[in-house]
Amino acid sequence: MEPSLVELKSRLAEISDLARAEAILHWDMEVWMPPSGTSARAMQMATLESILHEKRIDERIGELLDELLPYAASLSADSDDACLVRTVRRDWERARRVPTELAAEHMQTAAGAYEAWVKAREESRFETFRPWLERMLDLRLRYVECFAPYDDPYDVLLEDFEPGTSTSEVREIFGALEPELASLANAHATDDEDEFMRGPFPIPAQDALSRELIERFGVTWDSFRLDTVVHPFETTFGLGDVRLTTRYSENDLLSLFTAMHECGHGLYERGVSPTLDRTPLCTGASAALHESQSRLWENVIGRSLPFWRWFYPRLQETFPGPLGGVSLERFHRAVNRARRSLIRVDADETTYGLHIILRFELEQELVSGRLAVKDLPEAWNARIEELIGLSVPSDQVGVLQDTHWSTGGFGYFPTYLIGSVLSVQIWETLRGAIPEVDDQIERGDFVEIHGWLREHIYALGRKFTPAETVERVVGGPVDPQPYLSYLREKLETLATT
Amino acid sequence: MEPSLVELKSRLAEISDLARAEAILHWDMEVWMPPSGTSARAMQMATLESILHEKRIDERIGELLDELLPYAASLSADSDDACLVRTVRRDWERARRVPTELAAEHMQTAAGAYEAWVKAREESRFETFRPWLERMLDLRLRYVECFAPYDDPYDVLLEDFEPGTSTSEVREIFGALEPELASLANAHATDDEDEFMRGPFPIPAQDALSRELIERFGVTWDSFRLDTVVHPFETTFGLGDVRLTTRYSENDLLSLFTAMHECGHGLYERGVSPTLDRTPLCTGASAALHESQSRLWENVIGRSLPFWRWFYPRLQETFPGPLGGVSLERFHRAVNRARRSLIRVDADETTYGLHIILRFELEQELVSGRLAVKDLPEAWNARIEELIGLSVPSDQVGVLQDTHWSTGGFGYFPTYLIGSVLSVQIWETLRGAIPEVDDQIERGDFVEIHGWLREHIYALGRKFTPAETVERVVGGPVDPQPYLSYLREKLETLATT
Repeated sequence: MEPSLVELKSRLAEISDLARAEAILHWDMEVWMPPSGTSARAMQMATLESILHEKRIDERIGELLDELLPYAASLSADSDDACLVRTVRRDWERARRVPTELAAEHMQTAAGAYEAWVKAREESRFETFRPWLERMLDLRLRYVECFAPYDDPYDVLLEDFEPGTSTSEVREIFGALEPELASLANAHATDDEDEFMRGPFPIPAQDALSRELIERFGVTWDSFRLDTVVHPFETTFGLGDVRLTTRYSENDLLSLFTAMHECGHGLYERGVSPTLDRTPLCTGASAALHESQSRLWENVIGRSLPFWRWFYPRLQETFPGPLGGVSLERFHRAVNRARRSLIRVDADETTYGLHIILRFELEQELVSGRLAVKDLPEAWNARIEELIGLSVPSDQVGVLQDTHWSTGGFGYFPTYLIGSVLSVQIWETLRGAIPEVDDQIERGDFVEIHGWLREHIYALGRKFTPAETVERVVGGPVDPQPYLSYLREKLETLATT
Repeated sequence: MEPSLVELKSRLAEISDLARAEAILHWDMEVWMPPSGTSARAMQMATLESILHEKRIDERIGELLDELLPYAASLSADSDDACLVRTVRRDWERARRVPTELAAEHMQTAAGAYEAWVKAREESRFETFRPWLERMLDLRLRYVECFAPYDDPYDVLLEDFEPGTSTSEVREIFGALEPELASLANAHATDDEDEFMRGPFPIPAQDALSRELIERFGVTWDSFRLDTVVHPFETTFGLGDVRLTTRYSENDLLSLFTAMHECGHGLYERGVSPTLDRTPLCTGASAALHESQSRLWENVIGRSLPFWRWFYPRLQETFPGPLGGVSLERFHRAVNRARRSLIRVDADETTYGLHIILRFELEQELVSGRLAVKDLPEAWNARIEELIGLSVPSDQVGVLQDTHWSTGGFGYFPTYLIGSVLSVQIWETLRGAIPEVDDQIERGDFVEIHGWLREHIYALGRKFTPAETVERVVGGPVDPQPYLSYLREKLETLATT
């Protein structure tokens, strides 16, 4: 191997090890850490981040990339090494705009802000979180300034999650979605809830079913864990070490959808080609591609009729009390019906998009300075009223419901909706390749689906840009129309059965 | 503050953060990591160790220590800063003897060796572990050579756990103990076991009792966790984040003693003065001092008659099946009687010492090259026969029972027995200061005991050498006689009641 490539890969491996160590500290913080551990953990994470950032921006990486130009040019553009050199150059040029002190301060503040958010949410008291959110926003604005000049400050934030996608492109996609989603919600959304969906569903049984489900999807316990947290997420410590998290409530079955969602993220990470291990390509192509997989398994598969034809008998047998007298059709309608809801993660597929659009708009206002943090709850509540038609009784089920802002994750929310849009585009492509897919799902057989996704998406990791990856998989750009047709068809079918 | 001291403390804080991050990775590896995570984790730990070691041996630390000589000389020798400068100089001079590559290779190999040990123990197959143990021993011998010339290669290993204590001093202490322990075992040890000690004791109830007990000792769940592992240990991630681990079997009550043991370690770490946080003084003075605390809570308190006067009714009420008809006196005798046992962690206080002496001897033979790893099982079995009078039916309950060698921890075992010896010396001092201590224990009141230990031992952290710490607490050196008297009196009392 080229000596410069050997040295570059050794540096990248070290960076990957440190990034994963940081992820382990973060996972432990959210899953197990006792409350008084926060301040020590915040400093540990800041120290790690500071070392990691220094390594990421090392001048030597730039020199090695320069030395590798002729070699990279001699390779096929699709080869692992050509993709590596290309991607590392982009990452390196971007990272070196950011001072190490800012990266470390972000990490340290985020640990405190996360703790404050957990407390504020419990208390339903925005004021507990406000000063921390102000600090996190300020840190993000300082980060944005590292990339001046820019067209739109929000572009800078989006770029970390969705490289190459501009705010105006997202606005355009969401602009096409919003009126259609609103009109579908107006036509179909109800306020009432099916009584049988409130359980009780004993938690140990939900846990067992969650595990059973995701095992069928492809999870193996030699390489995965599933643990309980306040705000579920997925994180990866190695190709053989994927951590899913979930949460349980006796009064709903959301945990099944959460497990399928996080499982989708986990299968993506687990399926990256081992040749990319310990490089920055060993992860998903972008947040939206990642969400396309979580939402594909959670919704496109996990709320489909074939799926419940397979799994509903197991569910009914597990929870005969609430579900014994409920037909498959009623249950399938219950997990798909459009409902006005205050909580994003409880939302059906139609109103979900409206929740995302709300956050996307508020984030842009915060980042542009048009909205002050102190006025955020009021703005939130007004917008929920407009978009969803509900009044918000408390900040707990309003502005405090999501964890993302506590860790400074402005720019992430839009990727959920782009991911949903992509999930349907990808599904239609997969359906073309595996015409008997419904029969397979109805038998609880996900082997071919998982294999197709692994081959066409997961194995690529982050070799290509999100746009290139989407183009390779679905043969075109992000397109909201298939998603809208999917929703329309689903809601119309439900209304007539 | 002196500018050199500010810089030194900032470097030490970074080192402390990284060491704790490494501890988090290690804890996760033993408590939660799925099996396929090992190879990635080994590399992450090696990368962290390599960065940590480079920071520990940085020339700049030596310069700062030189600059601080006049300042340190102006301070009281007992002050935090004087102790810091003294201890950091010793640590730094020692660490820089060791090449970073060796430190990283040790860390990486240990992760694989630990996994191999777990597997070998399950299979009861020494051959699975042998090549790994050979590698770990070889790494330790390379480490020892970094400190040449030395009087005894074992001194080098001991120094990491018991700074300032030589192998010959340990030999002398153990030489005084061995004939007395053997004679006590000969006079009192039986082979039979009380049937009621075999349970069944349902595990959830053992867990609840373990938690109840250690809460009484001083554990608060805002700062502690208790989790389950193969080989219990304690580790600390911050003054407010102490992790205890334990294990359960339905067929014995060892978990209660394990919980008290690890709790002793945890209270020590939790009790270090906050002024020492993020410095290398923020931990126990040595492994033996640490073991003096684990064994004090586990044995001196946890196997005493006053303790069981308080706690036996709770135990009886929890496990009425096996214990309903068993008197306090019979139970107290059962948890204290000398028994010939193959397993160190199951051993009573008398034969425990013989188990340690065996390991101390075998370790010296391995390190001096007088014994080859391949001949270890045979040597183990022969020595158990001599010392304990039992023949070893399988390596699982023989040479494979302990985890220590898998991570290269040669030199640790002797600290258990020195710790036991110290625990009684410390207890007698405490008893002099709190004459009503038995009454307090009988009421389940450990506040004053914990307070005294915290003030006289825990708060000091690692400010003083082990010998200085022992001198400060008990007013003299390590002395095996009080421990022998304690055992003799206990066994004679049990024999006559």
